[in-house]
Amino acid sequence: MKVGVLGCGNVGAPLVSLIEQQRDSIRARTGINLEVKAVAVRTLSRERTVEIDASLLTTDSHGLVTDPEVDLVVETIGGIEPARELILEALKASKPVVTANKELLANFGPELFAAADGSGVDLLFEAAVGGGIPIIRPLRESLAAENITRVMGIVNGTTNFILTRMSEEGLDYADALAEAQSLGYAERDPTADVEGYDAGAKAAIIATIAFGGRVVAGDVYHEGISGITEVDIEFADRLGFAIKLLAIAERFDDGSVAVRVHPAMVPHTHPLASVRDSFNAVFIEGEAVGELMFYGRGAGGYPTASAVLGDVVDAAANLVKGTHASIGSFGRCDLRSLDDLTSAFYVNLNVEDSPGVLAAVAGAFGRHGVSIHSMEQVSLADSAAGTAKLIFITHQAREADLRVTLGEIRQLETVSSVGSVLRVIGAEGQQR
Amino acid sequence: MKVGVLGCGNVGAPLVSLIEQQRDSIRARTGINLEVKAVAVRTLSRERTVEIDASLLTTDSHGLVTDPEVDLVVETIGGIEPARELILEALKASKPVVTANKELLANFGPELFAAADGSGVDLLFEAAVGGGIPIIRPLRESLAAENITRVMGIVNGTTNFILTRMSEEGLDYADALAEAQSLGYAERDPTADVEGYDAGAKAAIIATIAFGGRVVAGDVYHEGISGITEVDIEFADRLGFAIKLLAIAERFDDGSVAVRVHPAMVPHTHPLASVRDSFNAVFIEGEAVGELMFYGRGAGGYPTASAVLGDVVDAAANLVKGTHASIGSFGRCDLRSLDDLTSAFYVNLNVEDSPGVLAAVAGAFGRHGVSIHSMEQVSLADSAAGTAKLIFITHQAREADLRVTLGEIRQLETVSSVGSVLRVIGAEGQQR
Repeated sequence: MKVGVLGCGNVGAPLVSLIEQQRDSIRARTGINLEVKAVAVRTLSRERTVEIDASLLTTDSHGLVTDPEVDLVVETIGGIEPARELILEALKASKPVVTANKELLANFGPELFAAADGSGVDLLFEAAVGGGIPIIRPLRESLAAENITRVMGIVNGTTNFILTRMSEEGLDYADALAEAQSLGYAERDPTADVEGYDAGAKAAIIATIAFGGRVVAGDVYHEGISGITEVDIEFADRLGFAIKLLAIAERFDDGSVAVRVHPAMVPHTHPLASVRDSFNAVFIEGEAVGELMFYGRGAGGYPTASAVLGDVVDAAANLVKGTHASIGSFGRCDLRSLDDLTSAFYVNLNVEDSPGVLAAVAGAFGRHGVSIHSMEQVSLADSAAGTAKLIFITHQAREADLRVTLGEIRQLETVSSVGSVLRVIGAEGQQR
Repeated sequence: MKVGVLGCGNVGAPLVSLIEQQRDSIRARTGINLEVKAVAVRTLSRERTVEIDASLLTTDSHGLVTDPEVDLVVETIGGIEPARELILEALKASKPVVTANKELLANFGPELFAAADGSGVDLLFEAAVGGGIPIIRPLRESLAAENITRVMGIVNGTTNFILTRMSEEGLDYADALAEAQSLGYAERDPTADVEGYDAGAKAAIIATIAFGGRVVAGDVYHEGISGITEVDIEFADRLGFAIKLLAIAERFDDGSVAVRVHPAMVPHTHPLASVRDSFNAVFIEGEAVGELMFYGRGAGGYPTASAVLGDVVDAAANLVKGTHASIGSFGRCDLRSLDDLTSAFYVNLNVEDSPGVLAAVAGAFGRHGVSIHSMEQVSLADSAAGTAKLIFITHQAREADLRVTLGEIRQLETVSSVGSVLRVIGAEGQQR
C-alpha cells in the first residue's frame, strides 16, 4: 500500500516518521504494509524537524497525485488551494484521501464528500477537529443511531491555554497571550485563534457531521476571548464557573440548527471546566446516550499525525476490501439565527457610584423582559473614585432582547461602559 | 435487515424501542432499514419497563438464532451460558452478532473473535465496556496505528458514585453504599461492584483490545473500595488527590502487560479526578497521541442500548457490503506479576502515641528499600487516648517490597493496625 504525502511540515513530517515506526505493528494487526512512496514539498532544501529520506521528496504535487504507483494520498498542506484541487484530482483517480485540513472542509466539505462517494473511495479527516482525539469517527459511526442534540467543544488549544493561565496564575490577557506566543502555542498574529475563526471552522465541520446538514464556516457566529479580563475570571470563579471558549452546535426540536463560538461560563462541576492548558475536549449530548466527552491533544505534530495514520490504516483496509465509508449527502441546514437563541448571561457594567444607577439599569433590563437572577456591586482596589462595577447574572433570555437591553444601557448617562457579556452554560446539561 | 434480540431486560427492551424510534433516521443516513424480527425472553408474561409488541416475543432462543429470516443477532442476556452457545450458533450461521456481555467476553473473548473471523462476520461489543461511551471502536480503529502504553479507567459507576458521595457529602462507606442501593445503582449483594470483579472483567477486555494479547478476567489483580474510610478521603483531598477505583492496563517496554483494579489516589488536576457520580471514563496514554480521555454514562438501559444500536448499524452496513471488521487473533500476553510493579503508596497506620513508634516504623520501611516522601501524624477527635494515626506517602517502590514492609510493620508492638494502603497515581501521566 503506497502512500503519497502532500506537505512535509508540522504534520506531514511526523507522519512519515510514524509510518516508519509503526509499519511492523500495523502489518501484524491488519495485514497492511504501508510504504511512503513520495512526499511533495515546496522546496527540497528546507530544514525539517524530522529527518526524511531525500529520495522521497518531490516538488511535483500533481505528479505525486497522479503517479499510478501511489495508492492513497494524504494532504497535509492546509489552506484552500492547491489542497482542494489536489484532493479532487486524487479522488477522481479513485484514490482514497486522508486530510487534516479544517479550513478546506469547513468551506468545501460536502463538495469533497460527494466527489469521494462518487468515486467509491474514502475521504477521511479525523485530525481536522480535535487533533489526535477521535471525534469524527465516533460521531459518524459509534453514534450513527443516536439523536444528537448538542455538541459543545473546547476545540482551540491556544485560547484554552491563555484562559487557563489567566485563571490559574492571575495573568492578564496580554501577558497570557505573550506567554502562549513565546511557547509557540500562538502565532505572531493570533487573530485566527483568539477571535474564534479556527474554532468556528471546526464547529462547522462538527455540525455538518453531527446533524447531517451542510454548515460552512461563514454560517458560524463567533466571538473571541480578547475582551476577557481578570475581573471576569475572578468573578466567574467566585460564582463557581470557569470561562472557556466554546464551539456550540445545537439542534432544536423543529430540526433547525445553531452553530456559534463564544466564551462562556461553565460550572466547575461540568467536565469541560476541568479541561486545562492546551488540551481540547468535545462534549456531546444525545437523547439516548446522555452525555459523552472526548478529551485529548487538539494539536501538535505527533498527536495529529497519529490520527491521520489511523485514517490511513482504515482507508487502506477499505481499499483492499473494495469498500468505503460513505459519509452521506448533505442538504442545507435550516439555521436558526443567534437572535432567537436563549441563554443566561453574565453582564459586567462600569458605572457611576451614585444612588440612581441600579434603578436605571434594572429598568432597562425589565423593559425588554430580561429578568435578573443576581446582582453584585464589586469594589476594585484600582477603581477611580466615584466609579463602581455592577455584575449581573440574568435568567434565561433571548439574545435579541439582551442586545436591545445593552444598547439602551449604553445610552444611560450613569453607565460609563459595558464590559464583558458572557453566556452562562447552566446546569441543564448536567441533569439530562 | 431483520434483527433478532436475545433478552428483553434492562438493555434489550430499550434497544427494541430505540430501533423503532431511530428507524427513519438510520435509513436516511445509511440506507439500512432495521426491523426487529423477534425477541427471545424467558417468560412471555413478565412485565417490562418498555412496551414490546407481544407478537415479537418468543421463548425459543435457539429458534430465533437459526430462523433464516433473522439476519443479525443481538445478545443482551448476560452471563456465560446460554449466551456463549447462542452467539457461537449465530456466528456459525454467518450472522453478525452484537453483544454487551462483559463477563462472557472477559472469559471467552478470543474464542468468540476467532469464530466470527472464521465465518467472516462481525462480532461487535462496544457496550461491554463503558456502556454508552465509544471506547472499543476508538481503540480498535482510530488508534490502530498508535502504540498504547497505558489505559486507566473508571469503569464501574456504582463505586464511583459511592466514592463521590463519600468525598462530596462526607458520608461513610456504609451510608454511601446504602444510598447507592436505594437508588438502584448497587445490587443488594454489591460484591461484584465494590470488590472490583465487574471492573476486572472490563479491564481484561480493554487490555485484550488495546494490546492485542489475550487477557482473561482471572488474570486481573483486584482490590475493592470497601476498606476506604472518610479519613482516607479527607486526607487525600488535603494532599490534592481524589480516591478513585481504577482499572489499569499497562504495557511495558519489554512487551509484558500488567492488568489490575484497585482504588488509587489521583491528583485533582488529572482529568480522571473530575469524573463524578456514576459516570465512567477511560484515560488512554499513547506514544504519539499523548493523552486521551473518553467520558460518559457507563451503564443504564438507554445509554447502553444506544451503543448496541451503533454496533447493529455498523454490522448491518458491513453485512450489506459483504465485509466485516476483523478483530485479529490474540496470542497469550506475557503478564507481569503485581510484585514487580512500582508505585508510590499512601499508607495509613493506627499506632500507639509513644516516642519510639516512628523510629520503629521508619526502620521497617528502610530495611526493604521503601523510601518515604512524607509523613504526617493525624489527630482525630474520636481517637482513643494514647493512640495516633500515621500517614505515609512513599516514593516509587516495588509492590513486593511494600508488601514485606507492611508484614513487618504489622508485627510491631506499637502498631495496632495497618489501615488503608493506596497506590498514588503520580503526575507522570500528566507530563508525558
